[in-house]
Amino acid sequence: MSPAMPTAAKLTASPTTTSTAPLLTFSNSFTPANLSFPFTKIVSISTNKRRKSSLQASPIIISSMIEKETPVAERPPTFLRETDENNVSSNSVRARFEKMIREAQDSVCSAIEAVDGGGKFKEDVWSRPGGGGGISRVLQDGAVWEKAGVNVSVVYGVMPPDAYRAAKPSENGGSTAVNPGPVPFFAAGISSVLHPKNPFAPTLHFNYRYFETDAPKDVPGAPRQWWFGGGTDLTPAYIFEEDVKHFHLYYYFKLRYCIQFSELLKTVNILIFFCSGILAIPFMAQKSACDKFDPDFYPRFKKWCDDYFYIKHRGERRGLGGIFFDDLNAYDQEMLLSFATECANSVIPAYIPIIERRKDMPFNDKHKAWQQLRRGRYVEFNLVYDRGTTFGLKTGGRIESILVSLPLTARWEYDHQPEEGTEEWKLLDACINPKEWI
Amino acid sequence: MSPAMPTAAKLTASPTTTSTAPLLTFSNSFTPANLSFPFTKIVSISTNKRRKSSLQASPIIISSMIEKETPVAERPPTFLRETDENNVSSNSVRARFEKMIREAQDSVCSAIEAVDGGGKFKEDVWSRPGGGGGISRVLQDGAVWEKAGVNVSVVYGVMPPDAYRAAKPSENGGSTAVNPGPVPFFAAGISSVLHPKNPFAPTLHFNYRYFETDAPKDVPGAPRQWWFGGGTDLTPAYIFEEDVKHFHLYYYFKLRYCIQFSELLKTVNILIFFCSGILAIPFMAQKSACDKFDPDFYPRFKKWCDDYFYIKHRGERRGLGGIFFDDLNAYDQEMLLSFATECANSVIPAYIPIIERRKDMPFNDKHKAWQQLRRGRYVEFNLVYDRGTTFGLKTGGRIESILVSLPLTARWEYDHQPEEGTEEWKLLDACINPKEWI
Repeated sequence: MSPAMPTAAKLTASPTTTSTAPLLTFSNSFTPANLSFPFTKIVSISTNKRRKSSLQASPIIISSMIEKETPVAERPPTFLRETDENNVSSNSVRARFEKMIREAQDSVCSAIEAVDGGGKFKEDVWSRPGGGGGISRVLQDGAVWEKAGVNVSVVYGVMPPDAYRAAKPSENGGSTAVNPGPVPFFAAGISSVLHPKNPFAPTLHFNYRYFETDAPKDVPGAPRQWWFGGGTDLTPAYIFEEDVKHFHLYYYFKLRYCIQFSELLKTVNILIFFCSGILAIPFMAQKSACDKFDPDFYPRFKKWCDDYFYIKHRGERRGLGGIFFDDLNAYDQEMLLSFATECANSVIPAYIPIIERRKDMPFNDKHKAWQQLRRGRYVEFNLVYDRGTTFGLKTGGRIESILVSLPLTARWEYDHQPEEGTEEWKLLDACINPKEWI
Repeated sequence: MSPAMPTAAKLTASPTTTSTAPLLTFSNSFTPANLSFPFTKIVSISTNKRRKSSLQASPIIISSMIEKETPVAERPPTFLRETDENNVSSNSVRARFEKMIREAQDSVCSAIEAVDGGGKFKEDVWSRPGGGGGISRVLQDGAVWEKAGVNVSVVYGVMPPDAYRAAKPSENGGSTAVNPGPVPFFAAGISSVLHPKNPFAPTLHFNYRYFETDAPKDVPGAPRQWWFGGGTDLTPAYIFEEDVKHFHLYYYFKLRYCIQFSELLKTVNILIFFCSGILAIPFMAQKSACDKFDPDFYPRFKKWCDDYFYIKHRGERRGLGGIFFDDLNAYDQEMLLSFATECANSVIPAYIPIIERRKDMPFNDKHKAWQQLRRGRYVEFNLVYDRGTTFGLKTGGRIESILVSLPLTARWEYDHQPEEGTEEWKLLDACINPKEWI
């Protein structure tokens, strides 16, 4: 907040009169799509039992207060604490994950600026007294994108004992026998929403995150917990089957066959660009090259994405899906780090070719109004259902980073019903009845 | 939903796979600002204890399912059940309240159409199999108003025993000794949001509602419960002190001195229009005419309004307040019916003179963009905090009626901070630090 901003004189004078202790909700996989990881110092008051729903994986509710972030003039080489005992070398998973998301932020922002051809990202860097920090980058009112936000953040916090126990239930489904005190945790993530101007160019959202607890010092043998989460999903206002197929195919192959050779990947990207819609056969030929991810990942994470981005009061999905996963730790940690890295690195080749095809298509006011109505649905999902957003709003995270996911503009018309068979109707139908695109 | 709408084939085929039972939240005063009262048949599964917060009065959480509304071709003379035992004559409070809100809907819509000079309200009427129904009227893209919704609804439902007990705690703060089974209830309300186009013309919201339970048949002597709630509040993008003073003064005098003579009221309205900003002395002269409301009402309900319309994650109020009350039953029932009627009938004289002054003021793109940013805040409040809206979204109410409160268009800019001393800064300051306007 700049010195010019009105200040909350009354609130500052008597902070306890304005609110009760905020509710802090996070899953044992950490928040799914938030743009900032806002809690650094949890003064735990109470915890509830782990609860399950089809759309929300194991949230734990704790009461907490959050430290206020402080703007920083220059981005530091790392947000890891110098005294981080778990970062004994730059080879730790937390160090490599932070490096990965910061490189992904750089490469995505560079690609967006290059395609936009005019807009430049504005950068805000912040840190928190308890450790960690973040970098928000926002390009607003560019030539191609209406609003593009790409944020990374690193959080050090303290997790209440119940949350630690819930993080890794014992095999019989109950808690583990360990009974630690508050457990320090580390979380890092990248999150981005890219809203183009042209109504034929789709919005993209992606988010990848890593969560790790310390091993509790007071319970010998109690393990360190860790997990990965994330996803990438596409939200067009109009369906171009070749675009949606390209996008889903890209992640289908990426999740099935990890292609490790960057030159080969580049070639394949070009091929898939031309082949999308008729099956990207070249990928199939590479099956033997790197078959280390679970073949179940794509169908499982595709369905998870359709389930997660569900606007319940509308009976619609926010968009046409992609992949979404959470709580992922039942695999080799190095494999999952590599997996998250591959997913994050897939954003540009999965998305940019679609934008190149659509960004200059002519459109009229009707197309724009429909895009704006769908942007309204985006706002509804993010403010009402998205765990990262609702978590951030409740816990005093950096509001501008959290709400950068909202579009620059949105629209709500009373009882708007597209005519059957129109392009608008087809999009709505696909949001109500998710399709298999490949 | 028209036949042309895509239908949720998969959802219909396997409804149990898509969701858990929705949470139904309502206070013992009923919902505060909802545009539809959506529950008609509560199949109670569980209840939680009454809980308090500074902003939410006594919500009770119950699991429920809601009947789907059915469109009706013509509005019926009444939404009361023919078999309503509590409506033994047209003189019952529930019958007179329904009559009052339907007359208020007619008069507000007529006044809006007259001032708009072009737009006409579209009407949708619906009923529910379990009884009750509603009328939604929406004027969209008029000459003066971007979107104006005025809804009435009547709900018959069944309240779980705990909710009945919580409705009227015994004097020691605990539950009453009665232990009834599920208790039928009746609720009726009018709710409206009026969003003008001109950025100098303020948005208005009002909502008045009445809630009544049956006397439990299985507990002799257990009382029928009833209460009133409602309020009217003003949300400008720019402050014109004379407008805000006129609005607050109008409700100040209305809540302090009920003026019963319509001709006198008309004269006083004209006078207050000219006098606003310098104190409406003519009202003072009428003190002896009708001094039946509690002189504490205005300061108490003004503060309640500032507290309720609080966007916690921003530290801002949605607008410049007005009055808000809930759970009101500690007065004579006839007095409160008269009070709610006076409040509802005050909407036109408190608001329309302001619109007449502002609707044709010249403005530029900067003014419009600021109005759109404040509309974004309106969306944030309604989707994240407003009890009526969040209640409706969770319980399967008529979505189009609930979300008609959202503006036609809204805007979110990253980290927008008005320059100190500007008109935009002054509005933001007044939203952060609520003022005493009179």
